[in-house]
Amino acid sequence: MEEVKTFELTREFADSLKQAIEQGNNDFIIQSLNGVNSADITETLEEFTTDESKHILNLLDTQIAAEVISGLEEDTRKRFLRVFEPEEIAGYIDYIDSDDAADILNEVAPKAREEVISSIESSEKAEHIVDLMRYDEDVAGGIMAKELIKANINWTVEQTTEEIRNQAENVTKIFSVYVVDDQNKLLGIVSLKKMLLARRGTLIKDIYEEDVISVKTYDEEEEVVAIMKKYDLEAVPVVNMQNKLMGRITIDDIVDVMTEQAEEERQLMAGISEDVEEDDSVWMLTRARIPWLVIGLVGSFFGAEVIGLFENEIAVIPIMASFIPLITATGGNVAIQSSSIVVQTLANKSAFRDSAIRRLIKVILVALLNGILLALLAFAISYFRRGDLDVSIIVATALTCVVILASLSGTITPIILDKMGINPAAASGPFITTVNDILGLAVYFTVAYLLF
Amino acid sequence: MEEVKTFELTREFADSLKQAIEQGNNDFIIQSLNGVNSADITETLEEFTTDESKHILNLLDTQIAAEVISGLEEDTRKRFLRVFEPEEIAGYIDYIDSDDAADILNEVAPKAREEVISSIESSEKAEHIVDLMRYDEDVAGGIMAKELIKANINWTVEQTTEEIRNQAENVTKIFSVYVVDDQNKLLGIVSLKKMLLARRGTLIKDIYEEDVISVKTYDEEEEVVAIMKKYDLEAVPVVNMQNKLMGRITIDDIVDVMTEQAEEERQLMAGISEDVEEDDSVWMLTRARIPWLVIGLVGSFFGAEVIGLFENEIAVIPIMASFIPLITATGGNVAIQSSSIVVQTLANKSAFRDSAIRRLIKVILVALLNGILLALLAFAISYFRRGDLDVSIIVATALTCVVILASLSGTITPIILDKMGINPAAASGPFITTVNDILGLAVYFTVAYLLF
Repeated sequence: MEEVKTFELTREFADSLKQAIEQGNNDFIIQSLNGVNSADITETLEEFTTDESKHILNLLDTQIAAEVISGLEEDTRKRFLRVFEPEEIAGYIDYIDSDDAADILNEVAPKAREEVISSIESSEKAEHIVDLMRYDEDVAGGIMAKELIKANINWTVEQTTEEIRNQAENVTKIFSVYVVDDQNKLLGIVSLKKMLLARRGTLIKDIYEEDVISVKTYDEEEEVVAIMKKYDLEAVPVVNMQNKLMGRITIDDIVDVMTEQAEEERQLMAGISEDVEEDDSVWMLTRARIPWLVIGLVGSFFGAEVIGLFENEIAVIPIMASFIPLITATGGNVAIQSSSIVVQTLANKSAFRDSAIRRLIKVILVALLNGILLALLAFAISYFRRGDLDVSIIVATALTCVVILASLSGTITPIILDKMGINPAAASGPFITTVNDILGLAVYFTVAYLLF
Repeated sequence: MEEVKTFELTREFADSLKQAIEQGNNDFIIQSLNGVNSADITETLEEFTTDESKHILNLLDTQIAAEVISGLEEDTRKRFLRVFEPEEIAGYIDYIDSDDAADILNEVAPKAREEVISSIESSEKAEHIVDLMRYDEDVAGGIMAKELIKANINWTVEQTTEEIRNQAENVTKIFSVYVVDDQNKLLGIVSLKKMLLARRGTLIKDIYEEDVISVKTYDEEEEVVAIMKKYDLEAVPVVNMQNKLMGRITIDDIVDVMTEQAEEERQLMAGISEDVEEDDSVWMLTRARIPWLVIGLVGSFFGAEVIGLFENEIAVIPIMASFIPLITATGGNVAIQSSSIVVQTLANKSAFRDSAIRRLIKVILVALLNGILLALLAFAISYFRRGDLDVSIIVATALTCVVILASLSGTITPIILDKMGINPAAASGPFITTVNDILGLAVYFTVAYLLF
């Protein structure tokens, strides 16, 4: 066995390739990339300039080059596509699955797009792509591919095998065959395993399974992910309103969606407003970070206004000021914990939900328990350090109130965002801490004012 | 086509099932669960008591019941297993894939475990399970299943098909056949599609692919996830040090690992120290939340000490106090942004990394740019609102320093955690905000002290 396995991209290898490009040493390039998996070549090209990459792609087998292009990150690919002629792009698209091809065409400038489509050799492929481009990116229709194997319910296993043979080049991954009637309505599914084990002459209708899980073209991608996860599917057929078979979604697309979701959630929780990575430019990184920093800053000035109202009290009892971070930090921590638990419930799409009232009671109970424990601890430390009973009572009381308020705001905000169609993870980010800073300070000084 | 699709679990359905259990109306239970996907039954049982669930499971076909048990959440299942006799558990395990079976056995009390294993009908299955239980949970060996189809390189396609027929019951999902030599060493792979299209009498050696990507039993699960994602694999063979075929990992296991990783990261970022869900008990939720709240609280008292050092200054210029939240909030936000960007780089296992020096320079540049923009804004607002030039200068200067410090701590902390083998996402949680609160306050008052 040739050891393919994972390919370790070294700086030296990349440098030697770059050198070969400069020197026009094409033999070296062809030789060193021979037999390398396209995913590894893709990874290598992410580090190259567009011209260097084009040089390499031109030396590769078209099939491999097409796979490489299809695997590139969106940003990199957009840059790439600009240096290719529409005919060149069309040539690669012939080798790319319709779902990825539609994504790529969406990245091409609208003017060039028409040219690319009209240059695609297979008119069926071109039709498929145009059809797919009609769907939103984040519904089942937007992630499905048109490539699939279907069999009429009246066919024999041999006829179906023949169909697989004819489509073998177009459909690279086959898990099962979808069974349809004369109107292309989805009736069921036959696994490849069953086909292989069937006797000669067996009819599809005698071996197919009626119980097939399908999704609709307009189902949200989150729903598709949830369904494929729940039922452990490696592919799911996509049907339209009339139950006609329109395409299929494979698990690798779902894995991509899950990766994107995880990244989006991480960025929302961190208050990063664009999809950036460490190797983006200083300017892009700044632009992605500054909006939430500004919102946090402005929020803090509201907090400053609240504190300003009590300037006279602070001048008299300056210890009051030293507990400000205690109030804001605890409020923020509690709110983020609460919201992330709600986000998790929403992400898991749990079947039952307790009634709103029961959930609220539970949130308040947890908050009370946490609040009282923290208040006792805070009271003990502050009394031990300062020996000021009044201030200690104020701090403990305010802390309990802040914990309860933060729990409520942290629980309610993601639910509201979700209802509004906004990713609820946004509630676990700087928004909730900013709101709770202001709330917390208001509570703290009000308690102080009332108890003094 | 029967409409199976997704099953909407209603409160009414669950209540009617519960009622039927109470009344011993077994016919109703059998009828209403007939044809329902095991994943849906699993979801239903998550809401039932252990005794109710056992009643239902006993009425189901053993195969279905085994699938239901295998799909349960760990916590629920642990409760379940206590009410079953070892023989009963063994009966179900006969129908469960070896990887899930090993997980289940790890949840059984050690004493009962031996009994269960000795009661398993198939001695091969029992051996497989014992073998799998040797591996750590988070390496390839710990997530692989022993069920797979392998063919000797010298077999014909017909011999291999016969092997699939013999194993059909044991191996539910077949994507491809692994090709081995007489010593069970992995040589390559044949897709089911190729087998189906091969002519009678074709030898495996003439159609198999040599380029097979495999993982080692001791590879970390994160590496397995990265490899399967990168190469778009639906299954990967697992080999030992001698390249002998030990098992295979299917994509649904990887999807589960990814879901767990996302949940773990969310909890780390939110400072939740146990794997809890909204429907856990008040006590469990509190226990999961209190540790980081206490750490944050104690950290805030250190912050209070810092502020306490400047009590006299605050008494004289109480406006100083009102900018405390500005300093702590901005520091926290910047640190979390920085750390989450590093966490993303680490999660993507990018091929090249810039040198440490270049990365550091970039972090400082981004921080400087953000810091100066925020400082200008803060200066403008504070001067406009208060008209106090000195305080505005102090705030702007301190803010710039805090942003730079927070960027550095946010960048370095996850890298250190990662090197220590700790999930770097822990650096994006309350730890980093607590540390930055203290740092920020120290900077703010030091700047104030120096500039006054």
